[in-house]
Amino acid sequence: MEETFVPLRGIKNDLKGRLLCYKQDWTGGFSAGIGIFAPTTYIFFASAIPVISFGEQLERNTDGSLTAVQTLASTALCGIIHSLFGGQPLLILGVAEPTVLMYTFMYNFAKDRKDLGHKLFLAWTGWVCVWTALLLFLLAVLGACSIINRFTRVAGELFGLLIAMLFMQQAIRGIVEEFGIPQRENPEQTALQASWRFGNGMFALVLSFGLLLTAIRSRKARSWLYGTGWLRGFIADYGVPLMVLVWTAVSYIPVNDVPRGIPRRLFSPNPWSPGAYSNWTVIKEMVTVPPLYIVGAFIPATMIAVLYYFDHSVASQLAQQKEFNLKKPPSYHYDLLLLGFLVILCGLIGIPPSNGVIPQSPMHTKSLATLKHQLLHNKLVSTARESISKNSSLSQLYRNMQEAYNEMQTPLVYQLPSTKLKQGLKELKESTIQLASSTGYIDAPVDENIFDVDKDIDELLPVEVKEQRFSNLLQSLMVGGCVAAMPLLKKIPTSVLWGYFAFMAIESLPGNQFWERILLLFTAPSRRYKVLEEYHATFVETVPFKTIANFTLFQTVYLLVCFGITWIPIAGVLFPLLIMLLVPVRQYLLPKFFKGAHLQDLDAAEYEEAPSIAYNMTFEDQERQATATRVDDLEILDEFMTRSRGEIRRTQSPKVSSTTPSSVGDIKPSYSPRVLQNAYSPRISQPRGTAEKGLGLKQTPSPGPSTLGQSSRGSSSS
Amino acid sequence: MEETFVPLRGIKNDLKGRLLCYKQDWTGGFSAGIGIFAPTTYIFFASAIPVISFGEQLERNTDGSLTAVQTLASTALCGIIHSLFGGQPLLILGVAEPTVLMYTFMYNFAKDRKDLGHKLFLAWTGWVCVWTALLLFLLAVLGACSIINRFTRVAGELFGLLIAMLFMQQAIRGIVEEFGIPQRENPEQTALQASWRFGNGMFALVLSFGLLLTAIRSRKARSWLYGTGWLRGFIADYGVPLMVLVWTAVSYIPVNDVPRGIPRRLFSPNPWSPGAYSNWTVIKEMVTVPPLYIVGAFIPATMIAVLYYFDHSVASQLAQQKEFNLKKPPSYHYDLLLLGFLVILCGLIGIPPSNGVIPQSPMHTKSLATLKHQLLHNKLVSTARESISKNSSLSQLYRNMQEAYNEMQTPLVYQLPSTKLKQGLKELKESTIQLASSTGYIDAPVDENIFDVDKDIDELLPVEVKEQRFSNLLQSLMVGGCVAAMPLLKKIPTSVLWGYFAFMAIESLPGNQFWERILLLFTAPSRRYKVLEEYHATFVETVPFKTIANFTLFQTVYLLVCFGITWIPIAGVLFPLLIMLLVPVRQYLLPKFFKGAHLQDLDAAEYEEAPSIAYNMTFEDQERQATATRVDDLEILDEFMTRSRGEIRRTQSPKVSSTTPSSVGDIKPSYSPRVLQNAYSPRISQPRGTAEKGLGLKQTPSPGPSTLGQSSRGSSSS
Repeated sequence: MEETFVPLRGIKNDLKGRLLCYKQDWTGGFSAGIGIFAPTTYIFFASAIPVISFGEQLERNTDGSLTAVQTLASTALCGIIHSLFGGQPLLILGVAEPTVLMYTFMYNFAKDRKDLGHKLFLAWTGWVCVWTALLLFLLAVLGACSIINRFTRVAGELFGLLIAMLFMQQAIRGIVEEFGIPQRENPEQTALQASWRFGNGMFALVLSFGLLLTAIRSRKARSWLYGTGWLRGFIADYGVPLMVLVWTAVSYIPVNDVPRGIPRRLFSPNPWSPGAYSNWTVIKEMVTVPPLYIVGAFIPATMIAVLYYFDHSVASQLAQQKEFNLKKPPSYHYDLLLLGFLVILCGLIGIPPSNGVIPQSPMHTKSLATLKHQLLHNKLVSTARESISKNSSLSQLYRNMQEAYNEMQTPLVYQLPSTKLKQGLKELKESTIQLASSTGYIDAPVDENIFDVDKDIDELLPVEVKEQRFSNLLQSLMVGGCVAAMPLLKKIPTSVLWGYFAFMAIESLPGNQFWERILLLFTAPSRRYKVLEEYHATFVETVPFKTIANFTLFQTVYLLVCFGITWIPIAGVLFPLLIMLLVPVRQYLLPKFFKGAHLQDLDAAEYEEAPSIAYNMTFEDQERQATATRVDDLEILDEFMTRSRGEIRRTQSPKVSSTTPSSVGDIKPSYSPRVLQNAYSPRISQPRGTAEKGLGLKQTPSPGPSTLGQSSRGSSSS
Repeated sequence: MEETFVPLRGIKNDLKGRLLCYKQDWTGGFSAGIGIFAPTTYIFFASAIPVISFGEQLERNTDGSLTAVQTLASTALCGIIHSLFGGQPLLILGVAEPTVLMYTFMYNFAKDRKDLGHKLFLAWTGWVCVWTALLLFLLAVLGACSIINRFTRVAGELFGLLIAMLFMQQAIRGIVEEFGIPQRENPEQTALQASWRFGNGMFALVLSFGLLLTAIRSRKARSWLYGTGWLRGFIADYGVPLMVLVWTAVSYIPVNDVPRGIPRRLFSPNPWSPGAYSNWTVIKEMVTVPPLYIVGAFIPATMIAVLYYFDHSVASQLAQQKEFNLKKPPSYHYDLLLLGFLVILCGLIGIPPSNGVIPQSPMHTKSLATLKHQLLHNKLVSTARESISKNSSLSQLYRNMQEAYNEMQTPLVYQLPSTKLKQGLKELKESTIQLASSTGYIDAPVDENIFDVDKDIDELLPVEVKEQRFSNLLQSLMVGGCVAAMPLLKKIPTSVLWGYFAFMAIESLPGNQFWERILLLFTAPSRRYKVLEEYHATFVETVPFKTIANFTLFQTVYLLVCFGITWIPIAGVLFPLLIMLLVPVRQYLLPKFFKGAHLQDLDAAEYEEAPSIAYNMTFEDQERQATATRVDDLEILDEFMTRSRGEIRRTQSPKVSSTTPSSVGDIKPSYSPRVLQNAYSPRISQPRGTAEKGLGLKQTPSPGPSTLGQSSRGSSSS
């Protein structure tokens, strides 16, 4: 995206791009069939549960001005509008932790002013929302989002980790509070005696850790050895909601002698209880706010505008990373404009506004990639089976599959480089045809020995995402349904919620390179080679370890300052500024301390893949990494999806094997020596000569065999 | 061992063999230095904790006749005597669950007889012990242990799983009881109010699961990515005792408001409290037992004799499995004779006798194998480093290492096939020399590029065990010390103990092929190939899946019957008979239902390795399995050690790679076609033609490439 600040141009471009695929956004969603419910349910839980808890938090912090009913209403309302009229439907909207923090800061300010106070708090936030919306309009119209490419990884990942820390903080605080007396309760009741509080706290530990551990396990169900494929798939898709149900059921096991109120469950007023709707008419009171405060509302409004500008854009950016291979265009400007309208709407009806949320938005894209993969897989497998049953030749089989694959592609109206479209099956064709021609199989009827339907298809399918609006609309409606289903939701123990918070914090970590660099600092030097053996980002190889360490330390200190500032009573309102500040710091300050090439690898702007580096794998590498290829491709996808951000060096590259001549019983002497030479050259050789320097591994000189073990293995496989 | 029933011959042979290495048993132990404390502590905890808990259990079941003081005293006394005068010092003695069951049955019988009752119970068991000892003498003298080879895997593994079930049952029962009111306590006290009992139960869940999960994790510390090697090694060696300390510390965290008695802690009378020693004088009362009961004591005595004969022998057998490569001879007959003396001794001083225990005995051998590996590793690495620093040639280096290796060998007086002695370094020599001669490096000074000290040594070290008496004596003394340290032990919460029971049950499962076959039944058919990719036993390849299933079902039903019978009040005394019955069942009944070859693979007699089968690995296999070789060898050892029983097919065989010609830049055409042909032949080809039939995998006809993915990988590495 070019950086252009011509008014309205960004919005116009966004609208043009998204309108072209608007119809397909709906038809594509409906065509996915029942499968769409897996990502929908997954995101609905990830969206609704924190929002309910934030509502509880807000209720405590604002003396009941805002409750879970309001946060749910805002999330549902904004979600529905965004899924219908928004630009990028992968973006999930919701009331987020930073919003809760800002509203808490504002309430603490307002409650002590005698001409504002508790009574006019919502009316005053109405004005804040009006100002915020105006600022957002301004930013959207002036094309502020065209600098999105300057929101580099360093800022986005720091923000992601901050959110994870806030989630984890809430989880820990929640569990600790289970041992104490809740504010709103009558401390005389049985369940709040010291003895029962102890039991309640311990029960909370059991429930929250139970949820956390089982939820993490269930996400990996696809790679389990036990159970049928259907069951494993079901658990992987629906495991997290399922675990919430299971642990809620467990919380009902203790019955005799245990008083009501143990374990504590979600608290929220029913939407039909008196006074729950007082906020809807807040617009009438807005005129009674003293003018000084109307003007003063501009100060928090700038903070919220900065926050939303950053948060909304980064959430959208994270939902559209390069690895997802999205086919439809982004829509940063238009979405920011729409967000302005949503903020004003929420302000006028006295509910906290929603914005694009992390980690739910990237979670949404990931779950849709899994869905798309399943659909592609099923289609191609059935095509291949049909061809084989008709005794087609290998070339015919390939043509049939290519056709089926093309059918499954989004009919894109705007121009796409055709190479990208066919990329997926190109490798399959090459290796198939080459192999077939060398064996003389090309015209013979194909059978499953030549073409293993399940495995070969899985290994060659590209990552694609089922881009549509249906799942977003559906999950928003379900969040809306929560308002009505409040009596049911109240059966969930709060401790299950804290476990869920911890789960979300942990789920957001893999793929965050900042986090991975922190882990790298704690990795024993002798074990760093293990990092190289797995999927890993470029910087591990190209940047010296000391530079990685310094960069990570800087980022960690910055993160802790950001986290610390949210604890300061009213000045905490400034924390969005601090995060925003990272953009100029990255652009002007960091280059003074770090080499340009290193910075580029540590923090690729535009989330682009780092320039490809010639990478000659030794046999040892190939052997080791070949392990990955046998597992179901969905498992690989699961793993790949967890590495969610920026460029990834997939060390096991199927390309290497499919582009090398593969002929049976035909050894070309001109070819073998090269391979053998590689086998004894340093494990990773590349032009810059910085291979392995990053991790400080010993670089063994070529052509001597690096180790005996390696050499004997290498030669035995030649 | 030949089956000979000439009186005393077995005992004589045992004594002859063990006396020859008796001195080395001590010198070898002292020479291990500080390292000996890792296995000692590990086994001490594995030995003492269950014994204390069995003591508690006995106290409840025998109305206080026997307590933890007596069980600890028996374990310590028998352990010390056995480690000093016993035959096989790897065998760990202790009061075991079956003994507790037998004593409970006997007490239930005795307490209702008016001329026996509570008062004469211990005196009567004294007579039972006398009879038992006589029977054991008879068995030992007549050479009954020479049929040990008929105690095939089917019986030993069933017994192992029964013990695991009893441990797990105790863990679950223990946790459930944490919610109830303990018998011996005053139900009026604060800690036993309904509310505090609930809290106590929940706290118990937290502590026991905490211990279980962290203990399991800590055993795998060596393969962690994080932390220094020293720390990881320390945690892997001492993690389990450490976790008992950690969770005991955690149990002291709740202080305010929480009354004494929460969580519940180990209960045992102090050995210096009055009446704790009443049992020592039981010999005086033995004469007052009515003659009818003295004769009648013969009935339980036969059961206990059968139980001990079986349990003691199987525990000893499991501690001396083939994979451990033990150098010193077994001593079944003499140990059984000594056990007779121990039983009579215990009976006369009114404490329950000890016998060889599962899973502690095999755990002992495993931990000593780890120790020996560390010692060998350190010695050889320092030798190699020294040689390299002196600019030795590769052949000189090898000679130095061979010398060092020989020095570390037990100086064995009895004859050992010399091939076995040098086996360890033979491979190293072959591959080193071959490689070196082909590259012209043989006389040049060696450097770390040719010979990677850390890795190459680790990969070639054989499994060996530090066979000595010191660790056994030391742990027995420590168990004895527990009697004095009772006030300290009482600080351990009972819930930590239940977690530890569950941990021991789980630790004993891997390597039990019966258990692995149960898991195989639950493995999805499409995932069974994954079993083949890992270390696996022969039967997975050679026996049809249906036969495996039937055999496993039969064994499971038998196990459940054995387990069920322990629940029957007094008839339960017969359960040792049922286990012993398995030996004839295996020999005469099972061959009627299963083919001989299948039975041999499913249940290799003598725990011998199944006859070696030509096994041509395809490239794909080699590639995949090569993954394992890069990890530290101690990790491999850890993994190998968990597969503890009988023959194991190590699919990644270093032999394959080291015996094939390994020359750099020198391709022999006569060699390549064979390899390539293998690459496209069915994954496992073997004479019997039953490859993969066991798992019901599709057998792809040669020479067509089985899958595209395989073929492209295969050829790219050639």
